[in-house]
Amino acid sequence: MALIKKPVTGMKDILPAEMQLRDYCIGVIKKTYAEFGFTSIETPCVESLANLNSKQGGENEKLIFKVMKRGEKLDLQNAKEENDLTDSGLRYDLTVPLVRFYANHANELPAPFKALQMGNVWRADRPQKGRYRQFMQCDIDILGEPSNLAEIELILATTTTLGKLGFKDFKVRINDRRLLKAMAAYSGFPEEEYDNVFITLDKMDKIGIDGVAEELEKQGFGKESIDKYLDLFREAEGKTGLDGIKVIADKLGEFLDADTKENLEEIITSVDSTKSAQFEMAFDPTLVRGMSYYTGTIFEVAMPQYGGSCGGGGRYDKMVGKFLGQDTPACGFSIGFERIIMIMMDEGFKIPGESDKVAFLIDKGIKGERLVEIISEAQKERQNGRNVLVVRMNKNKKFQKQQLAEQGYEDIRDFYEKPLN
Amino acid sequence: MALIKKPVTGMKDILPAEMQLRDYCIGVIKKTYAEFGFTSIETPCVESLANLNSKQGGENEKLIFKVMKRGEKLDLQNAKEENDLTDSGLRYDLTVPLVRFYANHANELPAPFKALQMGNVWRADRPQKGRYRQFMQCDIDILGEPSNLAEIELILATTTTLGKLGFKDFKVRINDRRLLKAMAAYSGFPEEEYDNVFITLDKMDKIGIDGVAEELEKQGFGKESIDKYLDLFREAEGKTGLDGIKVIADKLGEFLDADTKENLEEIITSVDSTKSAQFEMAFDPTLVRGMSYYTGTIFEVAMPQYGGSCGGGGRYDKMVGKFLGQDTPACGFSIGFERIIMIMMDEGFKIPGESDKVAFLIDKGIKGERLVEIISEAQKERQNGRNVLVVRMNKNKKFQKQQLAEQGYEDIRDFYEKPLN
Repeated sequence: MALIKKPVTGMKDILPAEMQLRDYCIGVIKKTYAEFGFTSIETPCVESLANLNSKQGGENEKLIFKVMKRGEKLDLQNAKEENDLTDSGLRYDLTVPLVRFYANHANELPAPFKALQMGNVWRADRPQKGRYRQFMQCDIDILGEPSNLAEIELILATTTTLGKLGFKDFKVRINDRRLLKAMAAYSGFPEEEYDNVFITLDKMDKIGIDGVAEELEKQGFGKESIDKYLDLFREAEGKTGLDGIKVIADKLGEFLDADTKENLEEIITSVDSTKSAQFEMAFDPTLVRGMSYYTGTIFEVAMPQYGGSCGGGGRYDKMVGKFLGQDTPACGFSIGFERIIMIMMDEGFKIPGESDKVAFLIDKGIKGERLVEIISEAQKERQNGRNVLVVRMNKNKKFQKQQLAEQGYEDIRDFYEKPLN
Repeated sequence: MALIKKPVTGMKDILPAEMQLRDYCIGVIKKTYAEFGFTSIETPCVESLANLNSKQGGENEKLIFKVMKRGEKLDLQNAKEENDLTDSGLRYDLTVPLVRFYANHANELPAPFKALQMGNVWRADRPQKGRYRQFMQCDIDILGEPSNLAEIELILATTTTLGKLGFKDFKVRINDRRLLKAMAAYSGFPEEEYDNVFITLDKMDKIGIDGVAEELEKQGFGKESIDKYLDLFREAEGKTGLDGIKVIADKLGEFLDADTKENLEEIITSVDSTKSAQFEMAFDPTLVRGMSYYTGTIFEVAMPQYGGSCGGGGRYDKMVGKFLGQDTPACGFSIGFERIIMIMMDEGFKIPGESDKVAFLIDKGIKGERLVEIISEAQKERQNGRNVLVVRMNKNKKFQKQQLAEQGYEDIRDFYEKPLN
């Protein structure tokens, strides 16, 4: 019986060249985050549907791959709804599992707890170029640190990692959910409409300030509110440092908590004076970030030369409480792992410090003592830190050598029954 | 709403201490296998049910976690059988996906192709101590190498890896499916009963030679066949080297292919004279290995001090043909990753060459310039290769320091608003 050669819809096989780059990046990421005191954890890829559907996952909750119940034979005749057949699914992010993990193990974990997670997640998105239904996420989170020491360390750790992977001249856009809300309040939008206002604001980079005005009008908001709101952005335009924060804070007056202003200022100043990668901290009052669970600072890595974001995160102080029953401050930063790999592949990134690769091509008939002799030599080279491939010569030796050269074997040696030298 | 804190039934969260060991082992494994010319690949965790149910997975096919179809709303009313609701599932091993991968990409891959796979697999086994429904497998396979160079390199690579992880004085038991068959033929068992005979033989280490005799009798085999069969094992008992092979081969005469004998002899001799780890190659005519897809050499790592096998594999020359339409020689070796981690945890394995770990305990109120000063110092230490954790002092500083010491922080420094020195 012929079987199905293709991976399931929307998921992909990873070939050796990409895998080598991925392994290299994973190594750099794990090592760098360890330097910042993060420890790796792992959770199962399968989670309870109750947790996955807890309204923490936003739109992703519509994209869950559900896993069928096991155990007693499924009763299809009497199954009335999906829940009769399934109670778990593949995780769509690493944040919900992290919070469950923390709730489950809080007593065994240090306070604060600094976690690194690298793992696959699944989303039943419509498959499209460069977007897959299984992909790797790479998250760091600090649970139990209320001060902005968390934000500062998260941004330093992530940008140091990106720097070590060869990225530079990128931006970390930063904003605060509380500032977003203060701006909306100051402009007179009704509180229950904030999220809709933010969804429109989020399109600023695509449709421009006039586009945002138009869309807000269409949604029926008053002209006065819209003008007042957009004036704030006009005033701050181009001011991506402390000056931008000051301009807006001065306008907002008592609508803005002094803490929020100081929080942003401190993060920007501290990161700028201690960073080890080449990048710019950029205050950006138009930054929204989609997930509704954010409660304070939010940030995003922008790499304009590659058109878009390569990571982001923020503070979510209320989410752990939903699992644990008591609030725990939390803040996280996620690297867009797949995007970074795609950029590095496209740019032809050369992995530094690779071992010498040697290929031993041995004649078809070789066996017995001569084979032992050759393998012994390979073993010696391996003990000297070289990577040695021992393979039989193919009929078309020239093509084989060409292939090997493409795989990075510069040193290719032929072996025959009797040593030729 | 309170959520579910526990992982789903039979799967487990991995805490930092275990995760650190796992990451270390993964690093050693990847590096060592690279020295032997293996390249990493990855396949999706989800596979087509058609492939998973292709009779290559043996008993594991009964343990599949099925994933519900996506797309058009599931029609529960008219669903008559499971296939109406599902067409994919979580993989239960890495061999079926490897073979599909190879069939899908054969043109892009070198010949022979040496693959390393480390990835999770899922089996809906009854949960029990030390056995989980999600666990990591670690497989190396050589596709396209018909000679026993494949077996030799697989055994050398795997044992070198185990050696680097600190294992020694283990055994690699080796046998050949063709020898097993020749012994059964010589003894006069009917060919269609071979598998049943082997299933009984496989219990030798538990029930002894008399137990095997008894069980074979119960199954209705003739006394003459049983005696003839078991005499072979009696003759070879204690002879775990070439002497054992000779004794049996002499008895079997023309029932045994000369190739099979020579194949085993060559593997044992070659590995013994080139190995870099401390272990023993042991010919063992009672070794069966469960999977019916094996066609030639089979082997297993025995660590008697830990009661059981820590890995195994063999040659399966017919499986690729089922996907590709044309046979391709194939041979693989799998390390029992979870078992090895369990042993290393139990033995209190100390990870070598860890970076120095420094903890900066900073006073609650510190912010602004003083914070920048402290973080700068942490950044310097990190650039010097140290892992630096910067955390706020807890109220109970003594307990916090105790906890940090347990996590391996030997150097813990206190920081207050004004430098004390």
